[in-house]
Amino acid sequence: MYLYFLGTGAGKPSLRRNVTSIALKLPDPSREVWLFDCGEGTQHQLLASPFGLHKITKIFVTHLHGDHIFGLPGLLGSRSFSTDEVGLEIYGPPGIEEFIDCALKASGTHIRYPLQIREIEPGEKLDFDPWVVKTTLLEHVLPSYGYRFEEPDKPGRLLVEKLQELGVSPGPIYRRLKQGETVVLDNGQVLNGQDFVGPPIRGRHVVILGDTRRCRSAVELSREANLLVHEATLGAELTENAYDYFHSSTVDAAQTAKEAGVQTLVLTHISSRYRPHEYGELLAQAQNIFPNTVIAEDHAAVEIPKSIGEGF
Amino acid sequence: MYLYFLGTGAGKPSLRRNVTSIALKLPDPSREVWLFDCGEGTQHQLLASPFGLHKITKIFVTHLHGDHIFGLPGLLGSRSFSTDEVGLEIYGPPGIEEFIDCALKASGTHIRYPLQIREIEPGEKLDFDPWVVKTTLLEHVLPSYGYRFEEPDKPGRLLVEKLQELGVSPGPIYRRLKQGETVVLDNGQVLNGQDFVGPPIRGRHVVILGDTRRCRSAVELSREANLLVHEATLGAELTENAYDYFHSSTVDAAQTAKEAGVQTLVLTHISSRYRPHEYGELLAQAQNIFPNTVIAEDHAAVEIPKSIGEGF
Repeated sequence: MYLYFLGTGAGKPSLRRNVTSIALKLPDPSREVWLFDCGEGTQHQLLASPFGLHKITKIFVTHLHGDHIFGLPGLLGSRSFSTDEVGLEIYGPPGIEEFIDCALKASGTHIRYPLQIREIEPGEKLDFDPWVVKTTLLEHVLPSYGYRFEEPDKPGRLLVEKLQELGVSPGPIYRRLKQGETVVLDNGQVLNGQDFVGPPIRGRHVVILGDTRRCRSAVELSREANLLVHEATLGAELTENAYDYFHSSTVDAAQTAKEAGVQTLVLTHISSRYRPHEYGELLAQAQNIFPNTVIAEDHAAVEIPKSIGEGF
Repeated sequence: MYLYFLGTGAGKPSLRRNVTSIALKLPDPSREVWLFDCGEGTQHQLLASPFGLHKITKIFVTHLHGDHIFGLPGLLGSRSFSTDEVGLEIYGPPGIEEFIDCALKASGTHIRYPLQIREIEPGEKLDFDPWVVKTTLLEHVLPSYGYRFEEPDKPGRLLVEKLQELGVSPGPIYRRLKQGETVVLDNGQVLNGQDFVGPPIRGRHVVILGDTRRCRSAVELSREANLLVHEATLGAELTENAYDYFHSSTVDAAQTAKEAGVQTLVLTHISSRYRPHEYGELLAQAQNIFPNTVIAEDHAAVEIPKSIGEGF
């Protein structure tokens, strides 16, 4: 399971960073890809990615600013060249449906595959068995959502040492105990599986925030996530400007990551005012507060880390 | 004065050919650039072109299919980063205004420069002193326009030989005669300038057609143009399919160019079904009928030729 950054710039594209879109490659054996935002040129970026358009089955829109949605009509239209069967679902703030309908209608674009658009309220929890996506409202000029993708927890590990102390040898009994069953041994002893299994191992949690200034709800949504993708439009020196314009600086992103106790922070949505030789400085500003930070680049893949110390 | 091809593909972008947009660099001393169509990613292509967004002062839309208009909202928004003074005018078929308004409104995009959108009827003649743009209705799935840009004619050349036969020597009189004045010589002879100036030299005429199948109005609009840009979505072998789907083949484009008696033909809007090694064959199909043909490539500039034999 990894993120693939299709666009990591802010506001307008540059030759180095396209406007926002992030692909989440679901864990094996799923072959699906979910997109978060779809700025203009996302379908172009996908041409140079590992993903065909028919692999994209859901798109989550954080907010309706043009650099996050203007690639939708074109991607939806081109996807008809790729499949007429595999459905696509779009989730986003109120207004997303009218935007899409208007663009498709004006252009006479016929969508050949099943397309569903669902406007959601912040705080909604979306159930895509076995995955869950939680949402929250951030603080931006327009309603802007954060999304938290959660893998299901996995059963804890079997406490083999404890069984061996009781003289229980490896065999089919181990499997039954691990599944939580109660087992009666030949000597009449009753073993409850729950006594021999460690605590559940948490699935990986990924948080992708829309544009936002530093705020409490960003911290709450990101709590103990394995990976947090946070906008960092501006550098540390412009932290107060960022706040006034409802954006975040490198420092804001790092502080949110630290407060939330996430494992890894990825900075994205970098203003085109910064030149490539300045990216190192932007990164250092965040790492000074939250060391485990990386800065996204277009076409970079970032693996979702397992929780530290959990060896599943 | 030249065309700069920003997108030369059909329907959906490929890594080699973006969807349609063509820039017309106006003749010196004007520094303006006019766009014809604005498919998704046009603002990205402009980043690698000689033109800043504030140089673009007019956009002519041929028709409302997505691969010709989905780059408009993003370009309009980004242009506010480039200027808040230089105005932009958009011309196109009915429906273009609603599409733009809807996208800008949904996304909360504020345009900082003067923006005018004018829906035009086919056959309208647009007067942009000293230039004229004529329009016609082509044959496509949606109303699709062709545009003919015309430079003003220039005064004919001074018939120096005729003056020398009369014994008139070069001097200020030559300039006055060339301007059409009537001049009285020292010997009392009266010379009417109009008798000593050749026929007016026609300005350069450029025709850019929207998507169309072969049709009479394409020939009429293109009559004796210096340059004709014609779609050639498909190769010769698919000429009948092209007609059925309201598109043109290489052969259709060449026949229109031949019938209209244009000087140069440029093929564009090439389907992504064709691979680069096949472009030569597509070109040859057209050249077999109309030799002075070239095939457009993204980021290629094509000079607008002067009329043959007119040395202005």
